[in-house]
Amino acid sequence: MAGDNSIFVGGKPFMNYVTAIVMQFTTKNADEIIVKARGKFISRAVDVAEVAIKRFLKDQVEVKDIKIDSDEFENKEGKQVRVSSIEILLSKK
Amino acid sequence: MAGDNSIFVGGKPFMNYVTAIVMQFTTKNADEIIVKARGKFISRAVDVAEVAIKRFLKDQVEVKDIKIDSDEFENKEGKQVRVSSIEILLSKK
Repeated sequence: MAGDNSIFVGGKPFMNYVTAIVMQFTTKNADEIIVKARGKFISRAVDVAEVAIKRFLKDQVEVKDIKIDSDEFENKEGKQVRVSSIEILLSKK
Repeated sequence: MAGDNSIFVGGKPFMNYVTAIVMQFTTKNADEIIVKARGKFISRAVDVAEVAIKRFLKDQVEVKDIKIDSDEFENKEGKQVRVSSIEILLSKK
């Protein structure tokens, strides 16, 4: 699920991610893109995917699959923390 | 997709939602539950679902399907706003 066609959503300006998705599908002619995010950026990844496909790639691209997962690890204070993640697979119709 | 087996995740304490899911599957013997959220609470809904199935319902419940969507509407300032939503379908194995 890794590779060139993954877009990792974080704290950069919102439209950066939308533009990256649109460019991949149009200029770079990708067939599929995976939009990924962790923790609090999961909501943002959903927003990014929705704006990309509904405003810019309407009738061209669809959500093909969504996976959620989580990993537990120890933080600096020695406390167990669980961090969720999402992968949204966008695909040309 | 509405009905008794929906849990809408918002700003209440985190464990309220987790407990509600666990109770539905155990005490109330539900076969399926839909965890729903909108906007910034989407990340939280993923966290809630992950904690419920990995910590409390391990090997009993799985994520069966995930849908995302968004609605555009006019806010108080007359500006078009898009709000995303998620529906996570949890199902007994």
